[in-house]
Amino acid sequence: MSGISTQILTIDETKLTERLKELGNAGRDSGGELSRLAASTADKLGRDLVVKWMNDADLAVSIDKVGNIIGTWPAGNTEAPLAIGSHIDSVINAGIYDGCYGVIAGLSVIQAFQHAGVVPDRPIAVIVFTNEEGVRYAPDMMGSLVYAGGLSVDEALATIGTDGTILGEELERIGYAGKVIPGSIVPHAFLELHIEQGPVLETECIQIGAVENLQGISWQRITIIGVANHAGTTPTHLRNDAGLVAAKVNTFLRKLVSGDNVRSVATIGTMELFPNAVNVVPSKAVFTVDLRDPDEGRLVALENSLAEYLIELEATDGVSIKTDRLVRFEPVTFDSSIVACIEAAARAHNFSVKLMTSGAGHDAQMMSRICPAAMIFVPSRDGISHNPREYTEVTDLVSGVNVLSTVVLKTLVGDS
Amino acid sequence: MSGISTQILTIDETKLTERLKELGNAGRDSGGELSRLAASTADKLGRDLVVKWMNDADLAVSIDKVGNIIGTWPAGNTEAPLAIGSHIDSVINAGIYDGCYGVIAGLSVIQAFQHAGVVPDRPIAVIVFTNEEGVRYAPDMMGSLVYAGGLSVDEALATIGTDGTILGEELERIGYAGKVIPGSIVPHAFLELHIEQGPVLETECIQIGAVENLQGISWQRITIIGVANHAGTTPTHLRNDAGLVAAKVNTFLRKLVSGDNVRSVATIGTMELFPNAVNVVPSKAVFTVDLRDPDEGRLVALENSLAEYLIELEATDGVSIKTDRLVRFEPVTFDSSIVACIEAAARAHNFSVKLMTSGAGHDAQMMSRICPAAMIFVPSRDGISHNPREYTEVTDLVSGVNVLSTVVLKTLVGDS
Repeated sequence: MSGISTQILTIDETKLTERLKELGNAGRDSGGELSRLAASTADKLGRDLVVKWMNDADLAVSIDKVGNIIGTWPAGNTEAPLAIGSHIDSVINAGIYDGCYGVIAGLSVIQAFQHAGVVPDRPIAVIVFTNEEGVRYAPDMMGSLVYAGGLSVDEALATIGTDGTILGEELERIGYAGKVIPGSIVPHAFLELHIEQGPVLETECIQIGAVENLQGISWQRITIIGVANHAGTTPTHLRNDAGLVAAKVNTFLRKLVSGDNVRSVATIGTMELFPNAVNVVPSKAVFTVDLRDPDEGRLVALENSLAEYLIELEATDGVSIKTDRLVRFEPVTFDSSIVACIEAAARAHNFSVKLMTSGAGHDAQMMSRICPAAMIFVPSRDGISHNPREYTEVTDLVSGVNVLSTVVLKTLVGDS
Repeated sequence: MSGISTQILTIDETKLTERLKELGNAGRDSGGELSRLAASTADKLGRDLVVKWMNDADLAVSIDKVGNIIGTWPAGNTEAPLAIGSHIDSVINAGIYDGCYGVIAGLSVIQAFQHAGVVPDRPIAVIVFTNEEGVRYAPDMMGSLVYAGGLSVDEALATIGTDGTILGEELERIGYAGKVIPGSIVPHAFLELHIEQGPVLETECIQIGAVENLQGISWQRITIIGVANHAGTTPTHLRNDAGLVAAKVNTFLRKLVSGDNVRSVATIGTMELFPNAVNVVPSKAVFTVDLRDPDEGRLVALENSLAEYLIELEATDGVSIKTDRLVRFEPVTFDSSIVACIEAAARAHNFSVKLMTSGAGHDAQMMSRICPAAMIFVPSRDGISHNPREYTEVTDLVSGVNVLSTVVLKTLVGDS
């Protein structure tokens, strides 16, 4: 397979965009809403469509015990495959690109090889992971987590959904409770092509993101206990205003993550005041803090700064503060040689490219536990995702698949 | 009546405290909760008790068209009365002092005159105003507002309650729709004795508050419109965080009203974020601002500072901001000679006294539109009011009535 250039692989643009539309309509409800929650009947319709496409393209299809779909080409080659994957389950009222794009891109690459008449020495696998979104069953990224050995099959299948269903029973019902042991095939490498779901590429007019790492995530619930007092009769210096303390935490965090070279982000997304009356000084404020950083040391420093500030506020503002940890994931660093390959491939295609951090979680982060992995991002219009307005220009979609196919080719050639 | 000293008026402490308890139980429900909302059956029980006390003490009782109860002694004297008044309606799950203390105190003063065998040249009236709290029918301070000519009788009686009832019909039902035209008797002066409902007197260990003015109140609802973005994928500099802007408003207001000699208070008591999700930058924040100051010029300056800051925030934080005015009352200045008389009376009794501002609204503010008026405050334990834990020490209750009776005496003597 030596000597082949990037020129020989031609992506079928029409098929790519048609499949995005077709998969985007699989399971769409009568009101026009796409809510293809994991292991639902809508999910079955999406899965059936992808499996049909895999079969049509001569991939060998297997289903593992948590419902992950693995399509391998050429069939019969027992080398560790170069895997391309993502998910097709969605959030409630979703767009059509998140996840689906990466799955369809994998099929596009294989079909480009087939069209060029090139049979690689090592098989290429397309993996559709179960329940990446985690809307119906927690945790999210469940299929890849099980695949990578981070959660047992039994535990995953016993998960009770928000609707009271059990994942294992639902997979049986839709015909996707397979026999293969998840993770029994360890890929040679794993690639995930995904829409950015953020505004960075669009804002900076960059076509390709070479994702070098994935932010660590720290979620806390903070409860401030002050004293409820009459808003008219209580002088300022006698107040213990829980709402004001919550506000101070918000502005403090913003200062912490401001500055040109700061990679950390901090968000207070939820807030509740008690008793929540116009003329009563809040006695209690409950809010969440979402901290993220691609570097574990910096994320810990951020958490520590917040913790110290909360202690300071207890003293200065006469309140008591309780924190509950909700979520904590360490940052993930992707394989540097694959990231370099993505960057080089983008440049070879004359695309602008940026080394970047993923702010959201993806299946690739789980797969990086068991094999070299990395991700490719393409721009999201207005940074919007998890919404019907999610959109990526066709040229950007095609650019992403071209970079992916080049990376696949270079990785396979590099093997030989 | 000349030559009488403060010594001749002796307050019956036992009767004062027993009446507070008895009125506090009038209309209390089977669960032990006191919710004597205006013109309810519970209110009727309270009114009947007060009218009985008035009759027992030889007051001439009349009821006006909005249900205000006026008890005058001695009957038959047609001089403009020196009026003492407050209310006996309550909030939901109330304490026993708010309002009731001022009404019972008026009766105590008259009975002290009777006990001393002193008949004043000018009658003393005790007024029980309808619907001061405004819980069932808006606005609050309705009975005194109508009395002072600020609201027509017809409009008041047509008010529809939160429970769908009509005030006029409910007054008929409980037997308190009188014939007298409200305000037809303009008092010589009006005095209201009340618990502070705030922490100032207790904190400063002062026994008597001589209330010189009543804060102006400005309520606004502020809506900040930002942009919802992913909390992980959106860099800080690309955010338009409505929740952060709300937090900035809170800390800005606190700075505005901080400092040793600042009389203004500012409260953000309610807050709602949208979409209110842990991992979404808030697209919208809706909150209320409660500003109060005893000086209209300063209150306007406070409102203007806030308005200017909101304009600044629109530019710096990339949000749009809408404000809706909810409530606006100008400050009220009480009669300075009565306030001086209260201060002098307190000192004559060797009570510590403080000139102070009322942060809450009271019937006296309405009466000040038609006659010289002022208020006397006694301490509230922990500043708590509108709550079953509302409490004032018996010695403080008695001190307040002693000051009131001295002020009544001096005002009547001053006339002669």
